[in-house]
Amino acid sequence: MPVTTHIEKHFEASDIVRDVVIGMSDGLTVPFALAAGLSGTVSQTGIVVIAGLAEVAAGSIAMGLGGYLAARTDFDHYCSEREREIRETVELPHKETEEVAEVFRGYGMEDKDIAPVVAAICSNQKRWVDFMMRFELGFEEPNPKRARNSAITIALSYVVGGLVPLAPYMLMSRLLTALSVSVAVTMAALFVFGYVKGKLTGIPPLRGGLQTVVIGGLASAAAFGLAKWIS
Amino acid sequence: MPVTTHIEKHFEASDIVRDVVIGMSDGLTVPFALAAGLSGTVSQTGIVVIAGLAEVAAGSIAMGLGGYLAARTDFDHYCSEREREIRETVELPHKETEEVAEVFRGYGMEDKDIAPVVAAICSNQKRWVDFMMRFELGFEEPNPKRARNSAITIALSYVVGGLVPLAPYMLMSRLLTALSVSVAVTMAALFVFGYVKGKLTGIPPLRGGLQTVVIGGLASAAAFGLAKWIS
Repeated sequence: MPVTTHIEKHFEASDIVRDVVIGMSDGLTVPFALAAGLSGTVSQTGIVVIAGLAEVAAGSIAMGLGGYLAARTDFDHYCSEREREIRETVELPHKETEEVAEVFRGYGMEDKDIAPVVAAICSNQKRWVDFMMRFELGFEEPNPKRARNSAITIALSYVVGGLVPLAPYMLMSRLLTALSVSVAVTMAALFVFGYVKGKLTGIPPLRGGLQTVVIGGLASAAAFGLAKWIS
Repeated sequence: MPVTTHIEKHFEASDIVRDVVIGMSDGLTVPFALAAGLSGTVSQTGIVVIAGLAEVAAGSIAMGLGGYLAARTDFDHYCSEREREIRETVELPHKETEEVAEVFRGYGMEDKDIAPVVAAICSNQKRWVDFMMRFELGFEEPNPKRARNSAITIALSYVVGGLVPLAPYMLMSRLLTALSVSVAVTMAALFVFGYVKGKLTGIPPLRGGLQTVVIGGLASAAAFGLAKWIS
């Protein structure tokens, strides 16, 4: 099945890109916004660093494990649906044969043309179940290693992203200097990240870069405003 | 096409559930972990509340807008691929007809049986393009309203989730009492959330409940440990 192989390859590559994007966009944005928000109300960089690193630890673990469970759930769901289809080809072969015909009827084919197609598909149980999974239920076969890889990719991307805005607070003792450097460095990083993400996902890179800068800016402005307002 | 309609309905409902799960699992976990982490190093509930709410503001905006852009990118990608397929049915009809036949060859059908199927599908341009999008490229047609709905659902779920662990710090002045109540309330909320999520996604509810409690526990233990270690 060259077509299916082709689609799976395409999906795997875009899964890794998606995981890096999920982890890094939150990693760059949330610790940045939290640090900027706290800078409006506390007086030392120390507390910003502690809160920021605590957030990076919590966020990377929560997102990584969340990604792991999401991928596992997808995989378990696929397996249980597949088992049900296998059972049905044995217990209700007429109903399942009719469902294959139904897919083709949806494409406006005549019953006389459908018969040989259905016979060919249903002559082999694996092929029959593959067909039902993909064409009736719309499932792609998930990669069983995906859950673990997804968790690691998301968590690491979150940590890498999160260290960018926090580094100035770790290296500088004056809070407002650290805030300014953090804003400059992170805005630049968000732009580069959005630009590359745009290239990879096929949206215009400049638009991609501006979008991520706007998200980071809005999130940190909201955090900053809220923190100022409460304290 | 009753089959396609059925699949789209199924996908839409699970999209909303997925968005609530994305927003709420992070909303319950990360502010909880951050607040617990800071409780190990600061002396007043005030700073925990400020940092926690700043995180909820930043996290809900970052995740909501991130969800918006992800859904928009999916939609734009679908539209541009669809336009390319439409162009190809006009400019390269032989190649596209051959690609339809290729899909069926993958299911072990003979060329003589394939001919009428291919003719039926390619007799109508919309049907032809629909077929290529779904069966060759593996795309489901996305809902154009999804981007906005997804953003709102994720952001609100994050805020609702995030207020649960922060409420005790807002209502109580003794830091360790607030921490204990926050741990108890949030663990209970994580369990209920995981239990319901399990019911909706088809994994055993008890396992679902325990999974989310473990994620929340690990994330906050890491945040707590890291914050203690730095300060």
